[in-house]
Amino acid sequence: MSLMNTQIHLVSRPVGEPRADNFAQVEVPVPALEDGQVLVRHQFLSLDPYMRGRMDDAKSYAEPHPLNTPMIGGTVGLVEQSRHPAFQVGDPVVGMGGWQTYSVVDAQKPGMLRKADPRLPLSAYLGAVGMPGVTAWYGLTQIMQPQEGQTVTVSAASGAVGGALGQLAKVRGCRVVGIAGGPDKCAYVKDELGFDECIDYKACPDLKALRSALKAACPKGIDAHFENVGGMILDAVMLRANAFSRIAVCGMIAGYNGEPLPMANPSLILVNRMRIEGFIVSEHMQLWPQALKELGGLVAQGQLKYRESIAEGLEKAPEAFMGLLKGRNFGKQLVRIC
Amino acid sequence: MSLMNTQIHLVSRPVGEPRADNFAQVEVPVPALEDGQVLVRHQFLSLDPYMRGRMDDAKSYAEPHPLNTPMIGGTVGLVEQSRHPAFQVGDPVVGMGGWQTYSVVDAQKPGMLRKADPRLPLSAYLGAVGMPGVTAWYGLTQIMQPQEGQTVTVSAASGAVGGALGQLAKVRGCRVVGIAGGPDKCAYVKDELGFDECIDYKACPDLKALRSALKAACPKGIDAHFENVGGMILDAVMLRANAFSRIAVCGMIAGYNGEPLPMANPSLILVNRMRIEGFIVSEHMQLWPQALKELGGLVAQGQLKYRESIAEGLEKAPEAFMGLLKGRNFGKQLVRIC
Repeated sequence: MSLMNTQIHLVSRPVGEPRADNFAQVEVPVPALEDGQVLVRHQFLSLDPYMRGRMDDAKSYAEPHPLNTPMIGGTVGLVEQSRHPAFQVGDPVVGMGGWQTYSVVDAQKPGMLRKADPRLPLSAYLGAVGMPGVTAWYGLTQIMQPQEGQTVTVSAASGAVGGALGQLAKVRGCRVVGIAGGPDKCAYVKDELGFDECIDYKACPDLKALRSALKAACPKGIDAHFENVGGMILDAVMLRANAFSRIAVCGMIAGYNGEPLPMANPSLILVNRMRIEGFIVSEHMQLWPQALKELGGLVAQGQLKYRESIAEGLEKAPEAFMGLLKGRNFGKQLVRIC
Repeated sequence: MSLMNTQIHLVSRPVGEPRADNFAQVEVPVPALEDGQVLVRHQFLSLDPYMRGRMDDAKSYAEPHPLNTPMIGGTVGLVEQSRHPAFQVGDPVVGMGGWQTYSVVDAQKPGMLRKADPRLPLSAYLGAVGMPGVTAWYGLTQIMQPQEGQTVTVSAASGAVGGALGQLAKVRGCRVVGIAGGPDKCAYVKDELGFDECIDYKACPDLKALRSALKAACPKGIDAHFENVGGMILDAVMLRANAFSRIAVCGMIAGYNGEPLPMANPSLILVNRMRIEGFIVSEHMQLWPQALKELGGLVAQGQLKYRESIAEGLEKAPEAFMGLLKGRNFGKQLVRIC
């Protein structure tokens, strides 16, 4: 009697917001391991906004996710069986196991599976010490490059990426101003994560109001910004940007009907001699070890805090993912699988 | 009886297009030289679009030009009198003499006055071997950094900056596609300057048509772009941009009423992991010697061609400047002063 693996497949491509019927739960037997393979039993699955892009078949930076296969996703878990000498049963491991209870990993391929430090909470490897943390680290150190005393801003500041970004900038002696939606998130960003200020964009009815709020929070202007959102927030930041400022672009929303949302005043790129750069952290794997070393150290020392929003059970993944896209989560969205 | 200096002053700030009555011609005596000073008799004055920005008192990257003083501008000329040991009467020199027949230069200050190579045409120091050439060189080598075989595009391709940009990219083995207005300019760009293709944007009624023209001229996409214009041209280029492409922003027009012209689809910065960077070449003086060495060598070898549009007489400077802003010049706009 073989082990059964529960999977959640993408079975149709969402038009606009994903719906429950874009997904289906499937039970399949776990295959026997071949030499070099490892079977991982997942403890947590990470849900991330990039997954929405993979559900489309439009041209983007990544291939569309194939229908009728388990959705991709970062996972942490314990080794259940191993035919690879470097992995022992019970080892805590991090990988891209997808929306399923088990994954069979070709562990000899570089980067497919790495061991976690048992002194850190395993779920941290999906957040502060995982892709979100490295995303923040890359944008800050490779693009924004702020100097001590400079002013750094970040949108979606209460999220896993934004929260890490601000704390990494604080460690470097910057003034850090977050932008988040609602008083609860702003209080968390300021009081728990230690940002200098946090602006509630939902309390700003228009560009002028947001611009004024940024002016008050950033009296010396903005030297470096991390953009998770785009639209009005990016426009307001550009109006407050200093000469030679840098913007790392990690996320850009579309308008209500999926049409592109314009940048209001691109001539500020020239007036302020700005550098604006988009990036995808998975294209810079050579920097992950350096990033993870700093991130793991900061988590261990309590200097990098984070919050998790945990959905209980793999079957809750579609609903939790839909909530994530609507900003209903507060902290890194995870699914507890076992 | 002292020498008289004819100057053209900015006497009022233009609202929209400059008019003749924003300028006034003034005669003043040339003062006696002090130690370390040099008197230069100008042969040519350069007219450049950046001057329009200086005429406003709006916040920009440079201070507004003060009223009732000679407009600033690059000049070439011959030393007429010298109280500085490094300059002899008759030496050909390059400086920022302004809209006047003579300038008194504190030659001991670094960068105020430099000697020209008498083997090159003196006027070239205002174009291909001057600020326009260095502007192209900086954007290409410091921001666009194209590799051999990559596709490079440039708007305002028949201008002094655009023409140099394309030829510098050709020297580096790139496929070079210009964008210019009208069949005469396009023929010049392709046939005389040696670009691979030139697109007549005036023959493209809308974004879709320009996008199609770029697709035909850039079958492998665009790897690096030099932007002199903005608006629809930038939008079309971004739609054809490759992953990891770079855009150097040197100029950005405004809409018809002076309002900012939006960038239609900034999410392409993320989708294509683009880098967009604005720059002002006068802020990078440390690179000028290296740039001028390459530019001077290419002009001497006939590998960097250029065209001049010469207005005869200092009194023609305001009219020629107004024509420049309307794109009436064809090649580097100069004023012959004596």
